[in-house]
Amino acid sequence: MKQTVFEIIEPDRKNFLPSRIFDCAISTLIVLSVSVVFATTFELPPAVLDVFTWIERVASVVFTIEYALRIWTADLKYSDVSPVRARLFYVVSGMAIIDLLAILPFWLPMFLPGSLLGVRAIRLVRLLRILKMHRYSEAMASIGDVISEKRREILGSFFFVGLLMLVSSLVIYAAEHDAQPEAFKNAFSGLWWAVATLSTVGYGDIYPVTVIGRIFGAVLALLGVAAVAVPTGIISSGLIERVSSKNTVGPKISYCPHCGKRICS
Amino acid sequence: MKQTVFEIIEPDRKNFLPSRIFDCAISTLIVLSVSVVFATTFELPPAVLDVFTWIERVASVVFTIEYALRIWTADLKYSDVSPVRARLFYVVSGMAIIDLLAILPFWLPMFLPGSLLGVRAIRLVRLLRILKMHRYSEAMASIGDVISEKRREILGSFFFVGLLMLVSSLVIYAAEHDAQPEAFKNAFSGLWWAVATLSTVGYGDIYPVTVIGRIFGAVLALLGVAAVAVPTGIISSGLIERVSSKNTVGPKISYCPHCGKRICS
Amino acid sequence: MKQTVFEIIEPDRKNFLPSRIFDCAISTLIVLSVSVVFATTFELPPAVLDVFTWIERVASVVFTIEYALRIWTADLKYSDVSPVRARLFYVVSGMAIIDLLAILPFWLPMFLPGSLLGVRAIRLVRLLRILKMHRYSEAMASIGDVISEKRREILGSFFFVGLLMLVSSLVIYAAEHDAQPEAFKNAFSGLWWAVATLSTVGYGDIYPVTVIGRIFGAVLALLGVAAVAVPTGIISSGLIERVSSKNTVGPKISYCPHCGKRICS
Amino acid sequence: MKQTVFEIIEPDRKNFLPSRIFDCAISTLIVLSVSVVFATTFELPPAVLDVFTWIERVASVVFTIEYALRIWTADLKYSDVSPVRARLFYVVSGMAIIDLLAILPFWLPMFLPGSLLGVRAIRLVRLLRILKMHRYSEAMASIGDVISEKRREILGSFFFVGLLMLVSSLVIYAAEHDAQPEAFKNAFSGLWWAVATLSTVGYGDIYPVTVIGRIFGAVLALLGVAAVAVPTGIISSGLIERVSSKNTVGPKISYCPHCGKRICS
Repeated sequence: MKQTVFEIIEPDRKNFLPSRIFDCAISTLIVLSVSVVFATTFELPPAVLDVFTWIERVASVVFTIEYALRIWTADLKYSDVSPVRARLFYVVSGMAIIDLLAILPFWLPMFLPGSLLGVRAIRLVRLLRILKMHRYSEAMASIGDVISEKRREILGSFFFVGLLMLVSSLVIYAAEHDAQPEAFKNAFSGLWWAVATLSTVGYGDIYPVTVIGRIFGAVLALLGVAAVAVPTGIISSGLIERVSSKNTVGPKISYCPHCGKRICS
Repeated sequence: MKQTVFEIIEPDRKNFLPSRIFDCAISTLIVLSVSVVFATTFELPPAVLDVFTWIERVASVVFTIEYALRIWTADLKYSDVSPVRARLFYVVSGMAIIDLLAILPFWLPMFLPGSLLGVRAIRLVRLLRILKMHRYSEAMASIGDVISEKRREILGSFFFVGLLMLVSSLVIYAAEHDAQPEAFKNAFSGLWWAVATLSTVGYGDIYPVTVIGRIFGAVLALLGVAAVAVPTGIISSGLIERVSSKNTVGPKISYCPHCGKRICS
Repeated sequence: MKQTVFEIIEPDRKNFLPSRIFDCAISTLIVLSVSVVFATTFELPPAVLDVFTWIERVASVVFTIEYALRIWTADLKYSDVSPVRARLFYVVSGMAIIDLLAILPFWLPMFLPGSLLGVRAIRLVRLLRILKMHRYSEAMASIGDVISEKRREILGSFFFVGLLMLVSSLVIYAAEHDAQPEAFKNAFSGLWWAVATLSTVGYGDIYPVTVIGRIFGAVLALLGVAAVAVPTGIISSGLIERVSSKNTVGPKISYCPHCGKRICS
Repeated sequence: MKQTVFEIIEPDRKNFLPSRIFDCAISTLIVLSVSVVFATTFELPPAVLDVFTWIERVASVVFTIEYALRIWTADLKYSDVSPVRARLFYVVSGMAIIDLLAILPFWLPMFLPGSLLGVRAIRLVRLLRILKMHRYSEAMASIGDVISEKRREILGSFFFVGLLMLVSSLVIYAAEHDAQPEAFKNAFSGLWWAVATLSTVGYGDIYPVTVIGRIFGAVLALLGVAAVAVPTGIISSGLIERVSSKNTVGPKISYCPHCGKRICS
């Protein structure tokens, strides 16, 4: 029976009908429960709110049962370790933490403050599970692989950008604080401006007005173009590398022109 | 006679003069009729409006006749199916739907609301037909092919961006609603902010002011850089793949010009 | 003597000292004269303005003499055609038109309106000549080649973006005109908003406030990401193609493994 | 003893424990001292400020001693030149100038004006040293190599962008000065607008309102897309070249494992 339950709740079993029904039901419940989180930010009549509260309750209970079942069947998932370690492995895995965060706000309202929208929003991340069931998974995996392969280059370039932001925040604070004491109140305001400029978002809530500040702002805006260019270049080159290495797998098998034997290079 | 009509109204017959004249006339009428749509948003003297109404009427009637002729000659276009199915094939094709939408607002003013600018704007899409007649078609086809080949990766990355936007809208609403109840009125306002930030547009109509909101905004702005980088990388790599596969497919199997034997390089 | 003058005024003669001195003098005069154009937009004391007027006069006279000399020596530049055609060739060349536009505002103040800053700004384009003398020319030429090779793809994608802008301007006008009659006064305002959104500049002077307008704005902002991605991908792939074709020039010459003769493929 | 001191203060000696401890201590002190610079821009109680002043003093003295030790041991670093030249080599090297700028504001408060935040921010650049000690160094070096290899193309494209900005600033000043004398006060305001537009930051503090200004603004915004595309393409192609040349240099000339003869593929 444990085996059957495991087969049902495990995603990615396309040929097993109960598993597909279970996947659909859970996905629908995720979408519903997320819609409820969204809807509660609008002013609604009490009758509608009542319905939403009930959806929320049902979803939370179902998600909790699902979580418990996953812990119970974890020894089938990680069958090569002891049952206790298998459960521990599962509990600390990324998806399980998200699942736990998705049910926690319902069971612990007394420990967690306020409306908890931020935490409840985590429930959305569960939608990623839907991706697993679809044909997008291969395409996504290839992008994920590239990002993970190039993570050092990407993190390294973000480290540089971060450093540049910190330096910029101090420079712009020094340049603009006297002219705009309200806008550039402290280095944190400068940092917010540097982020908006380097990412080329440019909200326009704070911007330099002095000559020195504007010259520095111009330099930073142009460096922002480079800040976009570098990660793009890294991801492009990673994707191309993948493709070109895949392409050359085929023709790698060739025959020696001298003796005619096959060469696997 | 049907054959002649078909030859005339079908684009892409460069050597057949009447077809080219017809193409030019229709293109001119599209441009004129679109200009009229544009012009009616300005305040104009009644005399000018009268002229515009007449251009609109002529264009609509001509487009309707053209649409009818295309349905009539559809059996020549899809000659391998029965005449009825050929017409059905044509009616549900993308270009035919656009053509229908372009004439509908004129014939059905009583069924459609208001000024219908949005629907009438669809007439512009007909301008794409002009592209077909020109040498840009090959270059465009290659970009279109890449986008269609990589549609899973592109849609997948937009799915991720969409998910990120939904999560962000709830997080920013939770962080900013108390500080700016007017700007961050509900989750929809948060979504609008998330779109403006992740796409690096940054209108600056709403932006975070609290410390938590700004920290989250900074993270999202930097993720926006990645959101630009990933589709760019996908399209770049797709275009390069095309070129490199074109370059290498041919010369892979060749024959020695001296002894005629096959060389696998 | 004509030959000597030609050698002096022709750029790119690095081994001929008078030519280099002439290049430096002209470049300095261009920078000076452009600085004057810049400076005249500031409020300055009359004494300074007098100096600027004199710099302007000297520069204009020198540029005029230079232009006359270039026409005079054009038959040495295009030595394979008749002297008259050579001069005509020169006069209609891009650089000569820029040179003419750079001196015209000085000699024709009575025919041209106002301060003519826009036309005088063309003088800056002459600075491009400086590039010719430097080692940057090869690097720049390679980018220029890629842009010119891929001009159809680039123009084609800008044509699509242009079409999208026109459609968007009508849609947003229809969606927002009633809510913000001042901001979205006519389709031209809508076009200005569409440009700012699709290019991800996002000034924030006009933006949608209605639900339909914001949904459409969100879609357009995400398409703006694609509008950046496509030309970037085209240029990347063009640059990579160039490099990879250059790299493979070497190994193209190979020897037949059967008969040992050289194969030029 | 000098040799031991050199071994300790030189980064990148992973197997030598005292060197690693020294690296950690210095890095901690840099982070602390930078945090102090940040913190001083906030309004703080005097007691906290006192602590910060002491951290600042300790950090400055330690950095000064470190700087002196590096000069002292410079002859071991550059062992192939005379001791005097070795010290000179070190003093004018990039990292040493940053080190000097990091301690100068503490020792020369009487010569340097104001709060010196901008100069003190340079201390952050010292954090780059941390990178040296980590596994990111290889990934970063490859990006650095590409940027340095392609510096002519990158600088060249920024030269073009700069020229375009100067021309644009004059054009937009001419178009907008009469309509918005406050916003477009002089050519410098125009330049600030051109930077914000071409880099697609778009703060929205100044923007064109006239028809001519908006048409020109639209053109510039679209050119801004190209201004982002070109450096991205250069960096992408540079990174790919690196990878493909690494991949292909090796296998080009190989030997048949069966008969031992050389194969040119």
